[in-house]
Amino acid sequence: MRVIRSVSGMQRLSLEWKRAGVRIALVPTMGYLHAGHLSLVERARKAVGSRRKVVVSIYVNPTQFAPSEDFSRYPRDLTRDLRLCRSKGVDILFVPENADMYPNPPGEEFSTYVTEEKVSRGMEGASRPTHFRGVATVVAKLFNIILPDVAVFGAKDYQQAAVVQRMVRDLNFPLRIIVSPTVRERDGLALSSRNKYLEGTRRADALVLSRAIRKARAAVSSRRNGSLSAPRLKSDLRRLIAKVPSARLDYIEFFDPGTLVPVSTVKAGVHLALAVFIGNTRLIDNARL
Amino acid sequence: MRVIRSVSGMQRLSLEWKRAGVRIALVPTMGYLHAGHLSLVERARKAVGSRRKVVVSIYVNPTQFAPSEDFSRYPRDLTRDLRLCRSKGVDILFVPENADMYPNPPGEEFSTYVTEEKVSRGMEGASRPTHFRGVATVVAKLFNIILPDVAVFGAKDYQQAAVVQRMVRDLNFPLRIIVSPTVRERDGLALSSRNKYLEGTRRADALVLSRAIRKARAAVSSRRNGSLSAPRLKSDLRRLIAKVPSARLDYIEFFDPGTLVPVSTVKAGVHLALAVFIGNTRLIDNARL
Repeated sequence: MRVIRSVSGMQRLSLEWKRAGVRIALVPTMGYLHAGHLSLVERARKAVGSRRKVVVSIYVNPTQFAPSEDFSRYPRDLTRDLRLCRSKGVDILFVPENADMYPNPPGEEFSTYVTEEKVSRGMEGASRPTHFRGVATVVAKLFNIILPDVAVFGAKDYQQAAVVQRMVRDLNFPLRIIVSPTVRERDGLALSSRNKYLEGTRRADALVLSRAIRKARAAVSSRRNGSLSAPRLKSDLRRLIAKVPSARLDYIEFFDPGTLVPVSTVKAGVHLALAVFIGNTRLIDNARL
Repeated sequence: MRVIRSVSGMQRLSLEWKRAGVRIALVPTMGYLHAGHLSLVERARKAVGSRRKVVVSIYVNPTQFAPSEDFSRYPRDLTRDLRLCRSKGVDILFVPENADMYPNPPGEEFSTYVTEEKVSRGMEGASRPTHFRGVATVVAKLFNIILPDVAVFGAKDYQQAAVVQRMVRDLNFPLRIIVSPTVRERDGLALSSRNKYLEGTRRADALVLSRAIRKARAAVSSRRNGSLSAPRLKSDLRRLIAKVPSARLDYIEFFDPGTLVPVSTVKAGVHLALAVFIGNTRLIDNARL
């Protein structure tokens, strides 16, 4: 496994590979890797086969964090990430620097952004107004630098995957997006690098997200032949979450899994997503019901 | 020469070429080709050599026109364009349809745009607020569909070329932009498909743009050792333009050719751009002084 830090060095290698007909799979991450990321690496390897190349990028992208958010304290452990990627047979670990990704010479500052204006609007987009602009921009950059045939994203960031898929369709990126299932701890907690922030009893409190999903699922399956009112089910889940003193609901939404448009009645196939602060830690989760 | 109308067909061919190591040059146009466009085709052929591929795209891109502008009456003559491209040894003429470029299924409408926020602000960007968003978006799409190693743009649309260059740098498109000189009629009129709109005496009136450039050049060379006040030179040129009854100045700007930041003093090396309505026809021109 090679570690590449320079944008031009990475792009040069990708271009060489493309000219030689080598297929490339990309797993974009912000590092501090966990079993969820590693499942994406496995999915990427499966997609392109053993003789092709798997690139993992590790980049905590500043443009997708608001000034008030956790950019500077986002967990980082490159030594461990390196070891994990090596153990998974990753070919290239791409770890660019901010000054290389967002060049800033006086008078010629970075000034181009990609914005998606429909599926990025609600939920995460409403709570974090510039988040998806940062995501779409950095993902477009990574696609142009690494030139993957396939890119693998985690379903835990469901809306992010939808924004990226829309961008790929609209801007005609010549690649395929794979969305790989959320990996969970045994007790149901969705894996996230931010789980590291959960200290003491907060770890148990964080289970309220997956508990809400289970409750919604149970409600749907107990009404197999009817449909549920979304506002009513939302209040039930709000009450469930309010029982945990450290929890503060940011949003909970039922929506069409393809268009991400909110629905007023809930039935099997509808998607649920929620964001909850556990203390100061903002966690998200989602599932198809 | 082959004419390709489908986006997926064009992208499939480009991917085949890339895998075979074939270099591709792109000349993006809105058709109604004139000698200016053909000079771009020659430049493209020179850039990639005779054994490589030159693609000309013809697409009157709706997203770069405001509702009040001339999208529907923009001149079109595909038969003539075809003949001209064939005579220039173009390999592929790519002529996509609107429904293929901007897919619009209900609930999943086209929704991703590329915006450049610095060099696109003044001049054309100030007069035509959504113009460069449309340009950057369609150019990004063409780059992803045609996968060129080189793309050639005309210097007549100087700010457009600057926006595209900034986008290529910021989003890391793996290609090189060439900006090719403006081609003029003998009397100085810059070639433009919109010159077709000029009827009767308007053709002669339109010479006021190149006359303004010559006057600015003369002013700069007569003051070889000093510099001129930009506001004063602007008023001189405004007066020159006001002498033509059918002419209405939109803007005139002196700026740094690299950053496009306006300057207050004019000297050799400064760039001049202007937009003037001749009757209802909006013309632009520019030059380095």
